[in-house]
Amino acid sequence: MSAFRTHGRGHLNGPVVVIGTGLLGTSIGLGLRGRGVAVYLSDPSPTNQAVAVDIGAGLPLAAMGDESPELVVVASPPDVTADVVERALADYPYATVVDIASVKAAILNDLRTRSADLSRYVGTHPMAGREKSGPVAARGELFTSMPWVVCPTEESSAGAVQAARALATDLGAVVSQFTAEEHDGAVALVSHLPQVMSSLLATRLQDTPLHALSLAGNGLRDTTRIAASDPTLWVQILGANAGKVVQILYGVRDDLNRLIGTLEDPAAAGARLDLAQLMSEGNAGQARIPGKHGGPPQAYSWLTVLVDDRPGQIARLLTEIGEIGVNLEDLRLDHSSGQNVGMVEISVLPSAHDLLVEALSDRGWRVLQ
Amino acid sequence: MSAFRTHGRGHLNGPVVVIGTGLLGTSIGLGLRGRGVAVYLSDPSPTNQAVAVDIGAGLPLAAMGDESPELVVVASPPDVTADVVERALADYPYATVVDIASVKAAILNDLRTRSADLSRYVGTHPMAGREKSGPVAARGELFTSMPWVVCPTEESSAGAVQAARALATDLGAVVSQFTAEEHDGAVALVSHLPQVMSSLLATRLQDTPLHALSLAGNGLRDTTRIAASDPTLWVQILGANAGKVVQILYGVRDDLNRLIGTLEDPAAAGARLDLAQLMSEGNAGQARIPGKHGGPPQAYSWLTVLVDDRPGQIARLLTEIGEIGVNLEDLRLDHSSGQNVGMVEISVLPSAHDLLVEALSDRGWRVLQ
Repeated sequence: MSAFRTHGRGHLNGPVVVIGTGLLGTSIGLGLRGRGVAVYLSDPSPTNQAVAVDIGAGLPLAAMGDESPELVVVASPPDVTADVVERALADYPYATVVDIASVKAAILNDLRTRSADLSRYVGTHPMAGREKSGPVAARGELFTSMPWVVCPTEESSAGAVQAARALATDLGAVVSQFTAEEHDGAVALVSHLPQVMSSLLATRLQDTPLHALSLAGNGLRDTTRIAASDPTLWVQILGANAGKVVQILYGVRDDLNRLIGTLEDPAAAGARLDLAQLMSEGNAGQARIPGKHGGPPQAYSWLTVLVDDRPGQIARLLTEIGEIGVNLEDLRLDHSSGQNVGMVEISVLPSAHDLLVEALSDRGWRVLQ
Repeated sequence: MSAFRTHGRGHLNGPVVVIGTGLLGTSIGLGLRGRGVAVYLSDPSPTNQAVAVDIGAGLPLAAMGDESPELVVVASPPDVTADVVERALADYPYATVVDIASVKAAILNDLRTRSADLSRYVGTHPMAGREKSGPVAARGELFTSMPWVVCPTEESSAGAVQAARALATDLGAVVSQFTAEEHDGAVALVSHLPQVMSSLLATRLQDTPLHALSLAGNGLRDTTRIAASDPTLWVQILGANAGKVVQILYGVRDDLNRLIGTLEDPAAAGARLDLAQLMSEGNAGQARIPGKHGGPPQAYSWLTVLVDDRPGQIARLLTEIGEIGVNLEDLRLDHSSGQNVGMVEISVLPSAHDLLVEALSDRGWRVLQ
């Protein structure tokens, strides 16, 4: 029996065992069941496992009997993932074993110290998730078009890598390959650093008078949105990727020290230049972030429309934009404080901007730009 | 002739002189013209002034002749605002003079050293604006339901305060009163600190490989959005409010140093507790930010709907939500990378959440939560 049979080229055949039926594991089960792949579920909590079974993510592991799984997905918390991966490699000697933890090198290095058979292991990381957790919040579509990083090692067999990639693509994700170290460096910058900066900022608001907070606008809301993240998960993530994150924070600290020095004597020669340099470098960094669908950044123009806060107004606006024939590239709401008017920020191709401003104004909409 | 005649109780009569026809000054002119108030415009740049006149924000100052203005609005850059205010108080001895700069104490303190007649001066700050600048981007509706802070001093006469408040309310803004010091402390926290943190974060991305940036999600986008701000303006703002901002940054630096120490030895006793504390304090600070229309924060539940990236899909979704009878409290788009599918995040009252998830699913929408 081939260990790496595939249903079709690049697709999973099953069965797949999912160990850990939280939000991600259960969503993986649901997604695979939606494709007709047999899934067996296991979780240390009988309740979590039962819920996942009940909502259709798969059958209890005990029902698998003598069948040999094609793939084992370890969806345990990062702290215990290496343990569970090692156990799965031993329990299922013909299966590829993948994990989905948000940090990869710590787990890989731990496994290497255990002399596990890493030819059948591939670390992965689906970059999807929701504020909610647990199996009840799971959805099979969670990974659709989201990035899913696959981290083959020199030990990984071609068949194991193929199975790992098939898991991601079968769930609708966009696969990219990184080494474990590259991955951890990348997420340290694009995910862990923003979390840290947002939390550092938000902590300053704990004693702010509500009178002052009444002046809060979208700038504060945008920069503190992810400060609402779950502490338990992030303690594990930051702990596991501490080395990469702290390297970046040394740079942030240097910049912060320099800024503090400048602001302590803002009239000094060179102070303005220092501030301008910080702002310009921020401009430059922000401009490198990819735009919609991975395309070039900042390729769109924005305009703002005032809408009364009555039901259906935003729907009517978008419908009319469609009638005008302009494609909506992005949309944001800006909530005013105190009155029942909202601002809808619309982004469109620059070539469509003026046309849309004029057409909407003609139709009676109050357009700011 | 009374210096403080008002058209009706709490409304401006005019004429109003606007000095400085950039985005804000021109928008003020447009808004007041929309209410039938006579506006006269002045700008050091003949081009800026001509453009503002052309788009209907008012007449050139020379056309005012012998008329005595009721109000002078100084809409110059912060650096020269005190100069312009002092000059206007002298040139228009019967007028209230207000400014609209984003920092108040520095200007007030400067004016006090000049022995200007502060009974007719009131510092104000309309908290509105757009990424674009200049008169062409101006709109009379810019201030609708946005906060406008008015900062009376012990020297301010009642009539001057009334005129300042009338300017804001006539332009549709929501007026609040702060002392100059309170204002600067408040904006330091809710506006200047987020700007600094966003720029410090974004500067780290300057050398990030594009491969790594391909993993960027909404967390990075949200926290770096305002890092695209205009350096020239922010150098002036941070310079003028340096004292308040640096006090806050001392606290940020303490937290950052503590975090770096923890991440240098993440296995140490107490490390996890330190990280959990940072995250929890961030949760607590973020939770204090007012919600929609100044109401209680975080009173809503979110769900996510997948939509194909075809024109009209989002409009159709919102229309159906209206048909289902649920009010849309907030809306965000999450752009996936690589494929033509988008995620629409909808927030509704918690009591409507499950009903909406079920109703949308019944109608064939792919709902994630």
